Amino acid sequence: MTTIKDSVHDHIEVEGVAADLLDTPQVQRLRRIAQLGTVKLVYPSANHTRFEHSLGVYHLASRALEHLSVEGIQAERIRAAAILHDVGHAPFSHNVEELLHRHTGLYHDDVDRLIARTEVGDVLADHDIDPARVADLIAGEGKYGQLVSGELDVDRMDYLVRDAHHTGVPYGTIDHERLVRELTFVGDELVLDEGNVQTAESLLLARALMNPTVYTHPVARISKAMLRHATERLLDQPDIDAGEVRRMDDYDLVTALRVTDDTAAFARRYDSRDLYKRAVWAEYGDVPESVLAADHEELRAVEADVAERCELSAEEVIVDVPAEPTMTESTTEVLVNGDVRRLGEQSPLVTALRTAQREQWRLGVYTTADATDRVGKAAAERLGLDIEGALVADVTPGVTATLDEFDGGKP
Amino acid sequence: MTTIKDSVHDHIEVEGVAADLLDTPQVQRLRRIAQLGTVKLVYPSANHTRFEHSLGVYHLASRALEHLSVEGIQAERIRAAAILHDVGHAPFSHNVEELLHRHTGLYHDDVDRLIARTEVGDVLADHDIDPARVADLIAGEGKYGQLVSGELDVDRMDYLVRDAHHTGVPYGTIDHERLVRELTFVGDELVLDEGNVQTAESLLLARALMNPTVYTHPVARISKAMLRHATERLLDQPDIDAGEVRRMDDYDLVTALRVTDDTAAFARRYDSRDLYKRAVWAEYGDVPESVLAADHEELRAVEADVAERCELSAEEVIVDVPAEPTMTESTTEVLVNGDVRRLGEQSPLVTALRTAQREQWRLGVYTTADATDRVGKAAAERLGLDIEGALVADVTPGVTATLDEFDGGKP
Amino acid sequence: MTTIKDSVHDHIEVEGVAADLLDTPQVQRLRRIAQLGTVKLVYPSANHTRFEHSLGVYHLASRALEHLSVEGIQAERIRAAAILHDVGHAPFSHNVEELLHRHTGLYHDDVDRLIARTEVGDVLADHDIDPARVADLIAGEGKYGQLVSGELDVDRMDYLVRDAHHTGVPYGTIDHERLVRELTFVGDELVLDEGNVQTAESLLLARALMNPTVYTHPVARISKAMLRHATERLLDQPDIDAGEVRRMDDYDLVTALRVTDDTAAFARRYDSRDLYKRAVWAEYGDVPESVLAADHEELRAVEADVAERCELSAEEVIVDVPAEPTMTESTTEVLVNGDVRRLGEQSPLVTALRTAQREQWRLGVYTTADATDRVGKAAAERLGLDIEGALVADVTPGVTATLDEFDGGKP
Amino acid sequence: MTTIKDSVHDHIEVEGVAADLLDTPQVQRLRRIAQLGTVKLVYPSANHTRFEHSLGVYHLASRALEHLSVEGIQAERIRAAAILHDVGHAPFSHNVEELLHRHTGLYHDDVDRLIARTEVGDVLADHDIDPARVADLIAGEGKYGQLVSGELDVDRMDYLVRDAHHTGVPYGTIDHERLVRELTFVGDELVLDEGNVQTAESLLLARALMNPTVYTHPVARISKAMLRHATERLLDQPDIDAGEVRRMDDYDLVTALRVTDDTAAFARRYDSRDLYKRAVWAEYGDVPESVLAADHEELRAVEADVAERCELSAEEVIVDVPAEPTMTESTTEVLVNGDVRRLGEQSPLVTALRTAQREQWRLGVYTTADATDRVGKAAAERLGLDIEGALVADVTPGVTATLDEFDGGKP
Repeated sequence: MTTIKDSVHDHIEVEGVAADLLDTPQVQRLRRIAQLGTVKLVYPSANHTRFEHSLGVYHLASRALEHLSVEGIQAERIRAAAILHDVGHAPFSHNVEELLHRHTGLYHDDVDRLIARTEVGDVLADHDIDPARVADLIAGEGKYGQLVSGELDVDRMDYLVRDAHHTGVPYGTIDHERLVRELTFVGDELVLDEGNVQTAESLLLARALMNPTVYTHPVARISKAMLRHATERLLDQPDIDAGEVRRMDDYDLVTALRVTDDTAAFARRYDSRDLYKRAVWAEYGDVPESVLAADHEELRAVEADVAERCELSAEEVIVDVPAEPTMTESTTEVLVNGDVRRLGEQSPLVTALRTAQREQWRLGVYTTADATDRVGKAAAERLGLDIEGALVADVTPGVTATLDEFDGGKP
Repeated sequence: MTTIKDSVHDHIEVEGVAADLLDTPQVQRLRRIAQLGTVKLVYPSANHTRFEHSLGVYHLASRALEHLSVEGIQAERIRAAAILHDVGHAPFSHNVEELLHRHTGLYHDDVDRLIARTEVGDVLADHDIDPARVADLIAGEGKYGQLVSGELDVDRMDYLVRDAHHTGVPYGTIDHERLVRELTFVGDELVLDEGNVQTAESLLLARALMNPTVYTHPVARISKAMLRHATERLLDQPDIDAGEVRRMDDYDLVTALRVTDDTAAFARRYDSRDLYKRAVWAEYGDVPESVLAADHEELRAVEADVAERCELSAEEVIVDVPAEPTMTESTTEVLVNGDVRRLGEQSPLVTALRTAQREQWRLGVYTTADATDRVGKAAAERLGLDIEGALVADVTPGVTATLDEFDGGKP
Repeated sequence: MTTIKDSVHDHIEVEGVAADLLDTPQVQRLRRIAQLGTVKLVYPSANHTRFEHSLGVYHLASRALEHLSVEGIQAERIRAAAILHDVGHAPFSHNVEELLHRHTGLYHDDVDRLIARTEVGDVLADHDIDPARVADLIAGEGKYGQLVSGELDVDRMDYLVRDAHHTGVPYGTIDHERLVRELTFVGDELVLDEGNVQTAESLLLARALMNPTVYTHPVARISKAMLRHATERLLDQPDIDAGEVRRMDDYDLVTALRVTDDTAAFARRYDSRDLYKRAVWAEYGDVPESVLAADHEELRAVEADVAERCELSAEEVIVDVPAEPTMTESTTEVLVNGDVRRLGEQSPLVTALRTAQREQWRLGVYTTADATDRVGKAAAERLGLDIEGALVADVTPGVTATLDEFDGGKP
Repeated sequence: MTTIKDSVHDHIEVEGVAADLLDTPQVQRLRRIAQLGTVKLVYPSANHTRFEHSLGVYHLASRALEHLSVEGIQAERIRAAAILHDVGHAPFSHNVEELLHRHTGLYHDDVDRLIARTEVGDVLADHDIDPARVADLIAGEGKYGQLVSGELDVDRMDYLVRDAHHTGVPYGTIDHERLVRELTFVGDELVLDEGNVQTAESLLLARALMNPTVYTHPVARISKAMLRHATERLLDQPDIDAGEVRRMDDYDLVTALRVTDDTAAFARRYDSRDLYKRAVWAEYGDVPESVLAADHEELRAVEADVAERCELSAEEVIVDVPAEPTMTESTTEVLVNGDVRRLGEQSPLVTALRTAQREQWRLGVYTTADATDRVGKAAAERLGLDIEGALVADVTPGVTATLDEFDGGKP
């Protein structure tokens, strides 16, 4: 048994297949994938990695399995899935995931091949574990898949606490020890035991508070959009393959961006945190349906148009249209007086938070500091936004809050 | 200058009038008033006192005054109010406050006399501070009264963080440093600066999570109801005066209850945590208007009736009807695009939390462990409750959660 | 199984005999015994109790038993001893223990009778546990007694961490999770496993730092000496019995001191933290052998003499001669290259810390604020101290540090 | 003013010259220099950077300047030095510093040129600050240089707390708030005020506990030695310049090692944490004078000899002879009864810790897992060590402790 010191869960004991998996290059690579991508440009302490998060998820999964009395090969399989659940992550975690998906058709939890054909597969074979079943667990399939990837998964429990610890933001502090204890199965459904409506709500609220403060903080969004655009330029290079980029770590990607002519300017900006600023920051209700429904190519065309009108290079205008907010926790199941109920039915908070999320949603257009005015006008016109609204929105609280706090003067 | 080590704010520097007030018997007495009354019977670490809380409130007030650039005698007056804001508390803080109010007409913030006529008054005089103005601040009056007692007061900021720290519950962890920095005045209104809708919401959510978990935890409610009833018996004694009880500390009150014949049985139960159990636990919608509107005497009559029917002594039945839930934070004011807005208008969470609070509301009837069945039936009948609902409700989650957790078998 | 939330160890699971013992009046009484007695007059947050500490000791004992693979009735007996190890404490924990020992012949770990003849004995009988064997474990006897009371006991591991948490002092933060994991038996000796010389040292260092900062802080010593003297007066009363005082809780003792004529003045001082000040503060080397060897009666005589010379009442002069410092950790045993060695042989720190402790030792004479000068001179003369040294010593750093910090002006 | 959220100090307010310096590429580069180099291979959470540490040092310096009432341009200069004190660090902080010093003659605090000739110099010029004076402060020169680099510098206060926070090790928790408050000048000497011998000792003890547990943990030493050797190979490349390597960040260095033929094998090992193991682990007393005094070239020759004898490549044997332990804290100055005294004179702990450090010192020889036996014998012979001692030493506690804990089976 190996004992590892973790800044969140203190001592983590790793044994069995998980201990062997830890030593594979695929899991060790996670040491060099930042858990929160460019969020570290907002919160300088947020340098934690997918590796320590994977250890944390393994730890909570082990605790949950004890409480659920799951043992033997089934438990080993789930612990393997826990330690492996993020091996499919591209550099900078989610930051360029959508982009790579367009090129490779794969998301970070599509790991069938990775698990079967690498050292990971060898370790699993040594322990008589079928890689396909582990991949299924990671994809959230089957009764136990819910524990690894679902509304009540240990993944979320770890990241909320860990991200709060490392950013210094006090909002993600859920009672994860209690959550893990209160999990139970009703038939094949993973639910929270009687008396835990509020426990379920606290998980929901933690994410609702962490979202605008951390995960979608404007500076994180701007830097992520810039990284995404630069990586797209990188993928345009003849000698670069999307599958290869997906297997890079953060070091590889940053280096590739630095040494590629088309992306060197971005790399320089990234390295010195010289970021674009907001030209447009528009509320959901002010954005036409057609823009919300626009696909990637259409938005690239808008960027090119706006850049041309403003006599900028295409690289200097970014249109950032977030997906519609979701609230997966609304389907969390809790036991109430012996019945399994969805949290969305039981708790008035779910609807309120869904509304709040929509109110926090913003379309952003970013450009260089000296071009925000003219790009703002051109983009608002091109996108059919009310200019007044788009610009005034720039100071809407609840969203720009921390930005202003961190950035007085600079983007 | 005196520096005091605090487990929440680390070093607290006390100077000026506040340092002198610290040494008065009235402030020192707060060392012997438990901040959360009987909550310590649920959370054994919750032994913190009004004294350390008062220091914390003083500390946050001082920080806020710096940020608001309030100086001189005005600042001294506010700091005095901060350190004194709880000197009017009766033993066990809020637990017997309502009862004593019925006898004395005074709440804990009615401190005009206490401040004017004791050593506190002498200290204030030494510093040329008018006691009446300090009492007004404590009562929340005037522009600066909002800082001491209002929707955005430093009292709440301290107690949420402190109560979370001492109970071990992770839900009260607001970003109090940020809150204090973001306070500003618009005219005479204390508001949160631009960009803080979410900061305001986090304060609201923290209280919403702490309420059922800590402040109105069923075991805390039962023990508080028992304490209240025993204290009422105490006040029936010919040689006991309500004003005197109000000035007691926790040691005095516990001792008085122990040595008085009519209350000795309670004291024995309290000392060994041998508490009543729930006979009825009814939801808001199931309770007739007339019961909700019943006054103290009417409820005492119900208790007597039920006890008689069940052949119990009047002491052995307690009917506990909480006040309607309030949400004072809904009137918190925040700056949004230059306008002062009420949080209740701005945030969909306010309505949702108000609904959630009402759903968590419960009427309780408590009695000895062996009498819960017959008392439940008799009380439901007498109060016009649907018996079925009243009893099934006993396992309603979100309310009994922690009770079950702590008490497997025992109350 | 009962789960209890603790501010130090988070969730503590209590089951078996321990769960039943929790409900006895003898264990519940510990809720009203302050863990650190009068230390709360220095650190206002230090209001934690022997009850939560006992839960913590039980928790660490359970973890240690798991690691040591001790099971069955033996484990139940040890867990019972853990939860009961402090039931013999008098009010204010160690503050009046020596005094009561002079009257009753009992220390806090002499609990044979208490365990056999109260509700505790009934619970043990229900679980077929012999009270005498539990009492032996509490007294540190036998192989497993070392775990409850010895150089490597879980008692110390809990109190160092808990006292640091509640005072806010960062020095007691040992790696208790590691300590518990590294315990092992070599024959019948409880030792730390290979590779833990430094782990053992850290325990030693934590206590060395906590001692002057917390446990023997001058203000804690003064208030403890005052309490001890007042309690001695209380024991002089014809209707008071020392055995009875030993069974009191803090509430009882404070009340008794308030209502007894001879001690009311002390109670008033205690309640308003109006403490004596130091008249003498003399180093070990400056104190004659005869004073170090003086027994209780001789020191009482000195006090009376000095008081008379200074025209004070006997109550107003206190001579406080601490015992010689000990360093029980020096006999801690650790495995080094397969041999069991004593830490004192292995670590140069042990000798250094022993020297440091002697340097921190001080004889104190305390009196009312206005009499320190004349009492200092009279006491120095009477005790044969060099006056100059005794007074200059008043500002010796490392000892008065925090005193000055907390008390600017007042004791 | 910019406010930055830090996981250690919460909100850090940056203003004036420091705020402008933050935006220079030289300071931003520190985001990509790991504070503890390869220690993250032992403690997976230790991913914190020189950037956040520099912010922390700036923060503590600002607090100290307030307490010392230093203002105006002098204070600005010191704050600039605080934020800049680590800009001269090579990749992986101290790991390859000695190596680069042999090639460039520069240590990390030789920053005259860097400060004068880059964007940093421009910012300093804008604020009328002389770069040479800032460089002097960073080098620890002059009255105020002690605050930035000296026995009582804020650098150490920050790193002890930060490294403890991020590794999860509880030993570095000094009372930094108190330390900063207690600094004072006596003439031109920075000393701790009266009453702080123990405060000074606690700083010393924290470092003494962090050293073997974190800074010189065997796995950290092995990986650091491997990195150093690989970087030395890199410097052998004709197109690589030591000055250039010194200006790299961690990303650059890792990439350079990956793409250079002579170092690719190391990079693969580093990336998958496939480290060498210990062949020799010898105590100070067992190492001949000549070996202790050997210079770099001589040790390289030993490595080559041993490798040849064992039929390994020169890369596969590393001889790691640490410098003699120092204890800079022994010259810390404290005020004792009005005199400035060195801690080394005042505290018996200094000598004890110096002895303890020497006892923890180990010479290491590292090689591939399958060659430890034969390399151990060959190296012991070549270095004139007693073979028996050198190998048995492998399990000496206090040093291998955490290694075994983390590594069951793997190096």
